[in-house]
Amino acid sequence: MPKISEKGLQMPASPIRKLTPFADKAKAAGKKVYHLNIGQPDIATPEGMLSAVKNIDFNVWAYTPSEGTLAYRTKLTEYYNKLGYNIKPENILVTVGGSEAITIAMQTCVNEGDEIIIPEPFYANYNGFACMSNVVVKPILSYIENGFALPPIAEFEKLITPKTKAIIICNPNNPTGYLYSKEELEALKALCLKYDLFLFSDEAYREFCYDGREFISPMHLDGLDENVVVMDTVSKRYSACGARLGCLITKNAAVIASGLKFAQARLSPGMVEQIAGTAAVDTPDSYFEEVNKEYTLRRDTLVNRLNSMEGVFCPNPGGAFYVVAKLPIDDADAFCQWMLESFAYNNATVMMAPATGFYSSPSTGKNEVRMAYVLNTTDLNAAMDCLEKALTEYPGRTL
Amino acid sequence: MPKISEKGLQMPASPIRKLTPFADKAKAAGKKVYHLNIGQPDIATPEGMLSAVKNIDFNVWAYTPSEGTLAYRTKLTEYYNKLGYNIKPENILVTVGGSEAITIAMQTCVNEGDEIIIPEPFYANYNGFACMSNVVVKPILSYIENGFALPPIAEFEKLITPKTKAIIICNPNNPTGYLYSKEELEALKALCLKYDLFLFSDEAYREFCYDGREFISPMHLDGLDENVVVMDTVSKRYSACGARLGCLITKNAAVIASGLKFAQARLSPGMVEQIAGTAAVDTPDSYFEEVNKEYTLRRDTLVNRLNSMEGVFCPNPGGAFYVVAKLPIDDADAFCQWMLESFAYNNATVMMAPATGFYSSPSTGKNEVRMAYVLNTTDLNAAMDCLEKALTEYPGRTL
Repeated sequence: MPKISEKGLQMPASPIRKLTPFADKAKAAGKKVYHLNIGQPDIATPEGMLSAVKNIDFNVWAYTPSEGTLAYRTKLTEYYNKLGYNIKPENILVTVGGSEAITIAMQTCVNEGDEIIIPEPFYANYNGFACMSNVVVKPILSYIENGFALPPIAEFEKLITPKTKAIIICNPNNPTGYLYSKEELEALKALCLKYDLFLFSDEAYREFCYDGREFISPMHLDGLDENVVVMDTVSKRYSACGARLGCLITKNAAVIASGLKFAQARLSPGMVEQIAGTAAVDTPDSYFEEVNKEYTLRRDTLVNRLNSMEGVFCPNPGGAFYVVAKLPIDDADAFCQWMLESFAYNNATVMMAPATGFYSSPSTGKNEVRMAYVLNTTDLNAAMDCLEKALTEYPGRTL
Repeated sequence: MPKISEKGLQMPASPIRKLTPFADKAKAAGKKVYHLNIGQPDIATPEGMLSAVKNIDFNVWAYTPSEGTLAYRTKLTEYYNKLGYNIKPENILVTVGGSEAITIAMQTCVNEGDEIIIPEPFYANYNGFACMSNVVVKPILSYIENGFALPPIAEFEKLITPKTKAIIICNPNNPTGYLYSKEELEALKALCLKYDLFLFSDEAYREFCYDGREFISPMHLDGLDENVVVMDTVSKRYSACGARLGCLITKNAAVIASGLKFAQARLSPGMVEQIAGTAAVDTPDSYFEEVNKEYTLRRDTLVNRLNSMEGVFCPNPGGAFYVVAKLPIDDADAFCQWMLESFAYNNATVMMAPATGFYSSPSTGKNEVRMAYVLNTTDLNAAMDCLEKALTEYPGRTL
């Protein structure tokens, strides 16, 4: 029998999904499972986006240009330039989800064996894309005590070698919800210019900033045009995760030209999605205001409930819809599995993502979990009732 | 300024698209350009598939499971088992187009630096996927004189080294249209079993077999379950190239388990596409009968016109919707560019793909072009009028 490849063996499994068999078993046994493990919002996709799908008007579901249709890229500039990005359609490659934007950015910009620095905890799938691209991830610890702020630039400099080619920031951050400040971005800019590094900016959660705080992108900084590569998606912005529509944005023409060759190999992004994405740009502000209000309420509910539990600490994040919380437990993986396998309260339990999957340094995050506040406050409260009870019963509790 | 990667430099550009700027210029100058360069059919997508899109009934455009929805994979087994593949939903990974099925197959099954043997001329994007996966393509020449039949097994054996991990066949073939016989597939089976190789079967054109000839897949052969990986797509079957919906099929459980990790990294295939793909399985036979009749007529028209031209030879292919024809010219790249830049007949010209892009061995295919018969016979005849005239005027003609 022919054997699978080394890469096939090494490729990491998704930490968000590895407890799914236990959740399935719990559900099969009639238990209610509150899913806080995955960033699948329950928010409705904008009506205009769904109408565009329902009103498609063509006979042949055809390829589009590999870089995306000019119509969609032009409409996207309207969206991005309102944010002050000052881009043209030729600065955009339309991708199959944010995922493909990450792959193309890595393969286009980073040599095999070269290194990317990423503040951890970080979006777990960066590991998978790095594995696919033979790129080495160098994690740099951020700390729950200061809400997972950007680590000091001096710590980045300690990691920089001749092999360092890029830094990835996810802003607002998945999994921590941290929103980077203008000062932090300016510090990263100086670092990237000093060492000639790409700055990959994953902005999937751009629309989710709370308490009136402003989102700042590296695209807003002067003098960094050749270094910044934005990796974006419509998934969270319009609650359209299943559309698989994203884009890569850069003013570095060599990156676009090379990225286009990767895009050409896979021929085309989705046609219907680009039609829907074009319509989505006209989503009224009121949609985002409603969504923001709802998420602020959910965040406040979740963070307050967590911090009121004995031995629990949860920073109040400025953005995205995740929190990483510290729990009085011995081992987050064991705890999350126990919650599904052995615990119930009112015949319900909670599925969370152990934070270990978001750290690359060994034995970090062992008493932390990531929760996505993608449920309404009634369900969130019920989930927190479960968690509070579970923390008094879990055999591995440390209080 | 940070530099792009070596891979970004090495990645091949698409040979099908490299003449596009010349075509655009010709069109801007008011010339009619008949596009025979690309496999974008003008055939209507089945009504049932488009209706499924128009009738979507959900509020949240959500992720699906990374392997595809159980509903779609179950429906697909209905389609494949009618063909005699004898598969279950767990033998299928739903992919973003056939392209992703190729990438996942390569990355899952072939170590970096290891080799895949592919009869040439072959689908040019295999080169791009091989580059992305650090896999070495070993071409094996097939010949226009015998219609691009499978090269003798002894020729394959000459290429086999300890690094050989897989063979790719595209059947019916893009770009040659050749349809492999039962005997050829049996010979490949013996070879794969003898040397413990994967057999990647690209079956994008399965539905396009002419003259009553039967399509045979390696899935039909006994004793090859662990070796066969089918790479498929709805693109051509339902004229839905822009849907970006494909799948990888194998009875090798280790390949599925590993492939799933690659699928998890990119989260999900498209949701609307899977709904449409589910409906597509119920496309009535009459649709395919009509399409087959139309393509047979186009093939006959094209092949007859070509063979009636002086110094031209075009085999009559058994499947797909491409031909590779030998022309009395010095250099196919120069000729195809000249057709767009410097030639017109009745204010029209033809865009073709130089066959050089489909060969990996140096200086092969220099007097061959690939044509896709994706236009109606009126347009095809007008395109052939242009070509016939051009061959009498081209400065590099060899007659």
